[in-house]
Amino acid sequence: MRILVLGGDGYLGWPTALHLSALGHDVAVNDNFARRGYDEEMGVESLIPIATLDERVATWHQISGNAIKTYVGDLTDAAFVHQMVGDFRPETIVHFGEQRAAPYSMIDQAHAVYTQTNNVVGNLNVMYAIADIDRDIHLVKLGTMGEYGTPNIDIEEGWIEIEHNGRSDRMLYPKRPGSFYHCSKVHDSTNIEFGCRIWGMRATDLNQGVVYGADTEQTKLDPRLATRFDYDGVFGTVLNRMVIQAVLGHPLTVYGNGSQTRGLINIVDTVECIRIAAENPAQRGEFRVFNQMTESMSIRQIADTVSVEYPNWSRANGNEVRIEHVDNPRVEAYDHYYNVKHTALVNLGLKPTLLSTALIDHLFDVVDRYRDRVDLGAIMPTVSWRETANQLPHTASELAKT
Amino acid sequence: MRILVLGGDGYLGWPTALHLSALGHDVAVNDNFARRGYDEEMGVESLIPIATLDERVATWHQISGNAIKTYVGDLTDAAFVHQMVGDFRPETIVHFGEQRAAPYSMIDQAHAVYTQTNNVVGNLNVMYAIADIDRDIHLVKLGTMGEYGTPNIDIEEGWIEIEHNGRSDRMLYPKRPGSFYHCSKVHDSTNIEFGCRIWGMRATDLNQGVVYGADTEQTKLDPRLATRFDYDGVFGTVLNRMVIQAVLGHPLTVYGNGSQTRGLINIVDTVECIRIAAENPAQRGEFRVFNQMTESMSIRQIADTVSVEYPNWSRANGNEVRIEHVDNPRVEAYDHYYNVKHTALVNLGLKPTLLSTALIDHLFDVVDRYRDRVDLGAIMPTVSWRETANQLPHTASELAKT
Repeated sequence: MRILVLGGDGYLGWPTALHLSALGHDVAVNDNFARRGYDEEMGVESLIPIATLDERVATWHQISGNAIKTYVGDLTDAAFVHQMVGDFRPETIVHFGEQRAAPYSMIDQAHAVYTQTNNVVGNLNVMYAIADIDRDIHLVKLGTMGEYGTPNIDIEEGWIEIEHNGRSDRMLYPKRPGSFYHCSKVHDSTNIEFGCRIWGMRATDLNQGVVYGADTEQTKLDPRLATRFDYDGVFGTVLNRMVIQAVLGHPLTVYGNGSQTRGLINIVDTVECIRIAAENPAQRGEFRVFNQMTESMSIRQIADTVSVEYPNWSRANGNEVRIEHVDNPRVEAYDHYYNVKHTALVNLGLKPTLLSTALIDHLFDVVDRYRDRVDLGAIMPTVSWRETANQLPHTASELAKT
Repeated sequence: MRILVLGGDGYLGWPTALHLSALGHDVAVNDNFARRGYDEEMGVESLIPIATLDERVATWHQISGNAIKTYVGDLTDAAFVHQMVGDFRPETIVHFGEQRAAPYSMIDQAHAVYTQTNNVVGNLNVMYAIADIDRDIHLVKLGTMGEYGTPNIDIEEGWIEIEHNGRSDRMLYPKRPGSFYHCSKVHDSTNIEFGCRIWGMRATDLNQGVVYGADTEQTKLDPRLATRFDYDGVFGTVLNRMVIQAVLGHPLTVYGNGSQTRGLINIVDTVECIRIAAENPAQRGEFRVFNQMTESMSIRQIADTVSVEYPNWSRANGNEVRIEHVDNPRVEAYDHYYNVKHTALVNLGLKPTLLSTALIDHLFDVVDRYRDRVDLGAIMPTVSWRETANQLPHTASELAKT
């Protein structure tokens, strides 16, 4: 199958491209290197050193004999997208090519607007390229579990049968996104569902949980095939960050009381989910949604898991790990109901890799290997949901209180 | 009350500004004249001639003694929005300042992207100005009934209590928007509801039906106070278009079988709804939604109403009106359930002005007065929902069929 991976130079896009190529698919990747640019902007870098896209592709060709074609360009450039899709003529487009950090979108007005225009316009251009060139192309689009928020009812896979005043309808599951980034993914879903209705597009929206893990079967084959590993306060995610804190002897920082719960997924399952979605396409006109996560844990449970396992891994006395509660920069619910349906991908063949001692120990190994590269100053959150960067006193009465 | 009307030079923004000013509010208007620019682009113009914004404001000052301050600039310019809100320090911002035609958004990729970036970015900038300068400002935002689509259950006012698997939650009513323009309004609602949660913004989202009518109490006072009247295939709406077709002796064109139903509202009710929303603000942190419409009619019922009344109005024999069904350029449901709750504004004091013989006769009068300005070539739809302007053969099998 010809598969075009948008954002194919990123944390998940690159391992996905390798996984699909290893399985014999004809893969091309697109990227504009925006993710590497954010590192420059924020003054941080991946814990694990990463090669350039050219080096990555050349190394993969050396090792596997498989070619991966590259298209360097920006998805907000409609002419570029059109040319790329027309040239490669993919049967599936896997779309990772968006700004994907909630804190980045909440830095200030400019970052909120950048995130929404970059993501929404890029996705619209991909939709128009499909509508123009070949409506049979299956769009596999990355969304996020953070689109749903934490409703007091079960979270279904994108659609819900609603009974109301004696009548019923199958409707899109109502969203309660947690950042302007999460809002941008809701916007994409709204646009794509409309595209399926008017153009007969076929689309799979993957609402993914928080991904953890440092490598996959292919990225481990050569250091030049490694994927990035982010731990900073803006692009890092909770489990990776806590592993680093444990290894460096720092307290694990839990935002708020830690009862807020997340859906999680291992990176090796992510790449499998994409394969499964691609090889089992949606029907023409179908807007299909899968919840791409394998287990739920509260932030406190994640911290407890790391803090219990670290002394075992380090095989040394006195390696106790302290947990420290810090002010939550986000606005989110605590002690909430959280029950997510995620059977669709399992029914199509996913064998979940759940968080285990072995997996955490492997993360400890990875971090230990690169511990000299850690910038501890980058770990704490710097972006507040409640405040805008350009904060002025809000009202006379609020001013009087300060 | 200090009220800033964004898009205050438009079809509804201008009469709203006059209505609020006439009632003693301190009103300012913002516009970037994009709406006048669309006329240039499409080669059409308002049936009723309109004065420049400067002439309008000067005339109103002459007649009423009330000043209306003007801010000319683009809402996608964050610095401009910030400066304007900081300068006028409104208590209420009424936001009409968006591209508002579904067919315009469906012309091609460029118009879809323009509509969504213009609307979403402008609205984000307004939200950030409120968050930065004064979170007490009440945002009254114009949405559309077209965000809901035609679900098989009752359409509630923005929120719905969902019972599911023995649990329940109050959630945003699921949307099924009918164009990339309607999608942009859904995006705005998503962003604003999030802003209410994180910043404690107060917002009223007005999901407005199709507006008809040519004037209000104030716009009638002087020709230089008139508001625009659109009848072309892109910006014109169904009732206005059919009135023109009747007066000019042309068949009334019904898209498809005409069973598709719309919520309607008279322009004099629109300006009253805005007053009611402004004078009864949402609470801090509240995202309030009102369905701003007063009655539902199918396209066929509207055609029947016009065709029955026209011979009476023209008082002449042989003035029979023919109804012609044409291909529907949109993708929409026929013979669907449509039951919209719209009691919130009535409970706050709205006295609905329903479509009546007198109102239709008044529209016949207005059109008759300006019949020489009608460009019949502009009336028929030119934009198809199913096709992109840059259409290529979709697939080998689809190509074989053509």
